[in-house]
Amino acid sequence: MRVSPDELNRTLLRVLGKVGMEAERAALCARLFIEANRDGVPSHGLNRFPRFIEQVKRGVVAVNASPERTASFGAIERWDGKAGPGNLNAHAAMARAIELGRAHGVGAVALANTNHWMRGGAYGWQAAAAGVIGICWTNTMANLPPWGAPDPRIGNNPIIIAVPREKDAVVLDMAMSQFSFGALEGYRLRGESLPVDGGFDEAGQLTRDPSAIERANRPLPIGYWKGSGLSLMLDMIGALLSGGLATHQIPTNVITETRLTQVFLTFDLPTIDAAGNRAAIVDGILASLRTPAPAVRYPGERVMQARAQSDAEGILVDPRIWKLVQEL
Amino acid sequence: MRVSPDELNRTLLRVLGKVGMEAERAALCARLFIEANRDGVPSHGLNRFPRFIEQVKRGVVAVNASPERTASFGAIERWDGKAGPGNLNAHAAMARAIELGRAHGVGAVALANTNHWMRGGAYGWQAAAAGVIGICWTNTMANLPPWGAPDPRIGNNPIIIAVPREKDAVVLDMAMSQFSFGALEGYRLRGESLPVDGGFDEAGQLTRDPSAIERANRPLPIGYWKGSGLSLMLDMIGALLSGGLATHQIPTNVITETRLTQVFLTFDLPTIDAAGNRAAIVDGILASLRTPAPAVRYPGERVMQARAQSDAEGILVDPRIWKLVQEL
Repeated sequence: MRVSPDELNRTLLRVLGKVGMEAERAALCARLFIEANRDGVPSHGLNRFPRFIEQVKRGVVAVNASPERTASFGAIERWDGKAGPGNLNAHAAMARAIELGRAHGVGAVALANTNHWMRGGAYGWQAAAAGVIGICWTNTMANLPPWGAPDPRIGNNPIIIAVPREKDAVVLDMAMSQFSFGALEGYRLRGESLPVDGGFDEAGQLTRDPSAIERANRPLPIGYWKGSGLSLMLDMIGALLSGGLATHQIPTNVITETRLTQVFLTFDLPTIDAAGNRAAIVDGILASLRTPAPAVRYPGERVMQARAQSDAEGILVDPRIWKLVQEL
Repeated sequence: MRVSPDELNRTLLRVLGKVGMEAERAALCARLFIEANRDGVPSHGLNRFPRFIEQVKRGVVAVNASPERTASFGAIERWDGKAGPGNLNAHAAMARAIELGRAHGVGAVALANTNHWMRGGAYGWQAAAAGVIGICWTNTMANLPPWGAPDPRIGNNPIIIAVPREKDAVVLDMAMSQFSFGALEGYRLRGESLPVDGGFDEAGQLTRDPSAIERANRPLPIGYWKGSGLSLMLDMIGALLSGGLATHQIPTNVITETRLTQVFLTFDLPTIDAAGNRAAIVDGILASLRTPAPAVRYPGERVMQARAQSDAEGILVDPRIWKLVQEL
């Protein structure tokens, strides 16, 4: 079903107010949840709102905590997220990375002690809207077996890479697992096989059967050993730059998962490329994906389509989730 | 067969001198070729030396050209590689990125108009030896079909991520294709199947048959659509930051492939983490890979093993390649 942004906003603000979030913070927090659904990513939008409220009630998320700078050198800063709401912390960290990028050409913020940032793509779009290239990643609890072991020891550590365009952006938003647990569940509920191997079954064989992967708890890193290595490096850099926790130190439960580590990096193009024709560079690359047929989609293209449809028709919500949220 | 580093060095210096490379440049150039073999990566070391000399002779590689800075702002700089030797250019660019990182906490060099950097991992080890985190990537000619198209439109765009340790480093060196063409050839010559799907056959089916993938010219991006998107973003950021060519503009022939675009990024840990216990952070993360059994290798571990063996026993070379090089 589709709901108007206003109705969504009123509902989320009521619930956030009920758990004590200050009004100005609640406005941004609600917007970030709603924009995930608007952009076609409900799995990291409204679908996570009940769990977020549960985390606030349990004190995992400190509802009115704001990040504090703990160290600074030139173009890079360390911030402590104070266990505040992950989406507000990440938004503040990217906003600061944008300022640092504008001042130094490249800028970085390393954020320790934060919470799940919900939809990581939001901070890529935020950077692109400010006209800078944005790269950010987060670690997670151990939820992915590294290549060569059957048990989760690494995180699926999503990375976002965003390039600004005049009217939209090119934004890659991807985790290091081939399929998220949410995606596996979706395929299982629809009775479908995965389009490609997505993990191992309990016998240790690669499989496209989503329920077999869920039973074995063995999703697959992208590119097998390659995504496994990439996930490790992202975690290591995050922990070193921020001084925060690495994946192996984070509680492995979706409710108590907390004290995450994130990195936000920006490149300010106008400072280094005052005379360049950036639009032509990006247009040329995207055109090379479209011809000859078949045309290949670019990262972020589906987001723009979902956004246009949401703007015209209202925002798609899962009726079951919407009912849960209204009852909070 | 194994050859002493001295004999390798004398031979390469003789050949580089014959094609006119200045002595000081030749010393570094030879060292980078030899160190690739020493570290267990002959595919990007001596095996490429005959082609490199061919490129010098054809003027694709300007043997004595040095990179020049073309723009600068704060912590980021643009350099023009002047079509010089790719390994010398990349080494100079990383050296400059290390200086920028030390001055600003984070530093970046975007390099246009360069040539194949041979073994990308070299520049990761270079950063780590200087005590900084190093990230670098290159674009390539179109040699990989993006997800959703049968023809090569993106590059395999290797990325290197390096974290320093006291005595060694953790260094990930990976291309966006699941298997390189060199790796496919190796499996074919040994009559082996790939351990996992590595591309499509001519009927458009995923396959582990290396020769079927070579015939169809359809290697697979890591993680299917994910590596396809990641390759695209790396190319786009490189072209935007450097003002250099994107993959779709690069000649698609291994001899004439030139005017590549690369990015070198460093984070200087001591500046942001004066009091931190970096060794304990990295050791803790690596320990989490080793227990419970089975232990999982970390990126760079095999390099250290190959290096130790080379130091003890001499450097492994392919006898056929070694003969070719001696005859140059």
